[in-house]
Amino acid sequence: MKIVTAEQFWETNKDRSTVIQNEVALDQAVLEIINQVRSDGDQALQRYTKQFDGIKLESFLVTAEEFAEARDIVDAAFLPALQQARQNITDFHSAQKEKSWFINKQPGILLGQKLTPIDNAGVYIPGGKAAYPSTVLMNVIPAQIAGVEKIVITTPPQADGKVNPYVLVAAEMLGVDTIYKVGGAQAIAALAYGTETIGKVDKIVGPGNSFVARAKKWVFGEVAIDMIAGPSEICVVADETAAPRYVAADLLSQAEHDESASAICVTTSKEIAEQIKAEVEKQTAALERKAIIEQSIAQNSKIIIADSLPSAIDIVNEIAPEHLQLMIDDPTASLNAIKHAGAIFLGNYSPEPLGDYFAGPNHTLPTNGTARFASPLGVYDFVKKSSIIRYSKEALQSASDAIITMANVEGLTAHANSIAIRRDEPNA
Amino acid sequence: MKIVTAEQFWETNKDRSTVIQNEVALDQAVLEIINQVRSDGDQALQRYTKQFDGIKLESFLVTAEEFAEARDIVDAAFLPALQQARQNITDFHSAQKEKSWFINKQPGILLGQKLTPIDNAGVYIPGGKAAYPSTVLMNVIPAQIAGVEKIVITTPPQADGKVNPYVLVAAEMLGVDTIYKVGGAQAIAALAYGTETIGKVDKIVGPGNSFVARAKKWVFGEVAIDMIAGPSEICVVADETAAPRYVAADLLSQAEHDESASAICVTTSKEIAEQIKAEVEKQTAALERKAIIEQSIAQNSKIIIADSLPSAIDIVNEIAPEHLQLMIDDPTASLNAIKHAGAIFLGNYSPEPLGDYFAGPNHTLPTNGTARFASPLGVYDFVKKSSIIRYSKEALQSASDAIITMANVEGLTAHANSIAIRRDEPNA
Repeated sequence: MKIVTAEQFWETNKDRSTVIQNEVALDQAVLEIINQVRSDGDQALQRYTKQFDGIKLESFLVTAEEFAEARDIVDAAFLPALQQARQNITDFHSAQKEKSWFINKQPGILLGQKLTPIDNAGVYIPGGKAAYPSTVLMNVIPAQIAGVEKIVITTPPQADGKVNPYVLVAAEMLGVDTIYKVGGAQAIAALAYGTETIGKVDKIVGPGNSFVARAKKWVFGEVAIDMIAGPSEICVVADETAAPRYVAADLLSQAEHDESASAICVTTSKEIAEQIKAEVEKQTAALERKAIIEQSIAQNSKIIIADSLPSAIDIVNEIAPEHLQLMIDDPTASLNAIKHAGAIFLGNYSPEPLGDYFAGPNHTLPTNGTARFASPLGVYDFVKKSSIIRYSKEALQSASDAIITMANVEGLTAHANSIAIRRDEPNA
Repeated sequence: MKIVTAEQFWETNKDRSTVIQNEVALDQAVLEIINQVRSDGDQALQRYTKQFDGIKLESFLVTAEEFAEARDIVDAAFLPALQQARQNITDFHSAQKEKSWFINKQPGILLGQKLTPIDNAGVYIPGGKAAYPSTVLMNVIPAQIAGVEKIVITTPPQADGKVNPYVLVAAEMLGVDTIYKVGGAQAIAALAYGTETIGKVDKIVGPGNSFVARAKKWVFGEVAIDMIAGPSEICVVADETAAPRYVAADLLSQAEHDESASAICVTTSKEIAEQIKAEVEKQTAALERKAIIEQSIAQNSKIIIADSLPSAIDIVNEIAPEHLQLMIDDPTASLNAIKHAGAIFLGNYSPEPLGDYFAGPNHTLPTNGTARFASPLGVYDFVKKSSIIRYSKEALQSASDAIITMANVEGLTAHANSIAIRRDEPNA
């Protein structure tokens, strides 16, 4: 693992690539898929499922028999663990629930903000390199707490035409029984526009590969989307109180996601840097996903030596990492200085996998520097607000002249008329 | 103005066009502009300003002299009206401010949600058919309440190279002194990627024409955006207690925005429908923007006769209007049934222009049915959340086995290792 100085970090960071490239070939492929699904519906889904997943499906819907089969297959230790995680995720997200409110400070004037859940949501669960029951929990629970009535899942089928059993038991535990075996951009198009089988939804959430991410960008506006997810990242700030073997294990846990994942450590101690580097090498050798890890560590990862904690935190804010671990003497004291991070883990005993699976906060987090402006997935993603305005006759009378003045300045004289007619003929 | 039955509404509504068409020619033009701005920076801005706004500018920044000149030009009655509106908008949006919070229910476990304002925002203020000082207030005030430190405005210059004086005095009142005379897709590109003069921002907000809207869609992900605004709409629900001349005036106030604006009335009374229709014709004749109004009324507007209030509200929820006026006997009683609307105005004395300019809630609202999933612009658009997770050694010990089980199920064994190393060697 490379060790660099803070100066080297700032120098190379200038060339940081942009979040979204205009990938013309990918866009053309994705738009073609979207258009085919819009025009041919289920038939297009069948064609693409054959082409990309290698399986011809007569029906996309997971059956009751498949749910039952999944219950039989899964590891017995898994269900209690999942149940505990579910409880923690529910507890945390329940605290996010907002209330409608109103203001009634002046006679005759009532203003408010009404919260309403969205009607329905589609959750994309990736297939591919691994199975993700935790993603089911992290996407479905906030929607349920928000009050979304209809939640469906789409996920690419395995080559045998089935869906991973852990994904099925997680969905069943939450009461989601509509699961479509459709993946990729075609799944996003189906959720956005609807087909004979799959209903149009109001919001699409969940991670996916580059086709899924790009398709979400294209349908954005037609439906709401959560975010456009990039490769996963961790940034660990370590001082001399950090346990180097823990830091190394955490960096490696991020690095195993895929070759484009990145694991960065910023430390104020040269000695710790060397120890972490040695631990990374040592631990990598014993890990199952060694091949992926070696690539992401070599390509996208580094240890940066900063000369002080404040300058380490400047680097963190520049990176705006998805996951931030503060493995420093007094992490709470530095919290205020952290401006941009998706999730912040404090101390030696709060490693990122704790948050991925179990602690309660969402694991869907802004990647690739978007923590500068984006938030973790939450209950707030599944509700929307409506403003409420009620003025009495008298309240409107006293506001009339100001409103008419402003409308006239903007040249919107029919707006002025709507107020003037009430001022001049005040009895409805 | 057309009068149709509820059945006719539902029949024709099937063909409702999609929110975002894949407008290939527009996209190519917009992408070309974005790419030119990315590669040529200010030079590209100068070329496009000459091409689209008809003026060659040496500098884009509004000068102190121009601000002073604006103060001299504006109508004396305008400043007090603007000041009152500012106060009302500030009061309402202050109530939207959220707090950071934490949960500490179990020993050794602290979880939280930390709120941080985004660092900077760019506000687009349209030029063109009218001047919009109210848009300055509605976009800048929520950002300021959120705590955004750097707010800049871009707006297309007039043919004389100046910016509308009402926009300037509104910006100055709020302390925004960085105003760039750049409009269109080139302004959005400059805010998203930065040029020599214009700094890259984290979020772009504000309405604009189709080039602006499409450019916002393209840069979305690179930066945050508020929404993709479509033509403005009003929906008035009127029963026999509604004053037909008020309803007509309100429909016309929406219709004057532009030819694609839509004004819809749903009424439970045939008699009221006829009276509104007559009032629309009568009032139109006297209005300044008659030519625009006649087009939007003929093309996109109608009066729908529903046979009951519940069936009227079904139609409202299907439309999911930007602005909804409930001019009915007991509007509060129907509030719960309204699922999708940007802003809801209650009673005969709460016309939409009251909300556009003065009452306090934001006038940037979801259009074109996106109230199904989107909210008015608010303070929440300018803050983001970071999750906080802190576990003690003991708390992590008792969670270890569950986390390891889940990580192994997902095949992420380095995740399991990050927990196992702490379980097995618990002393940092």
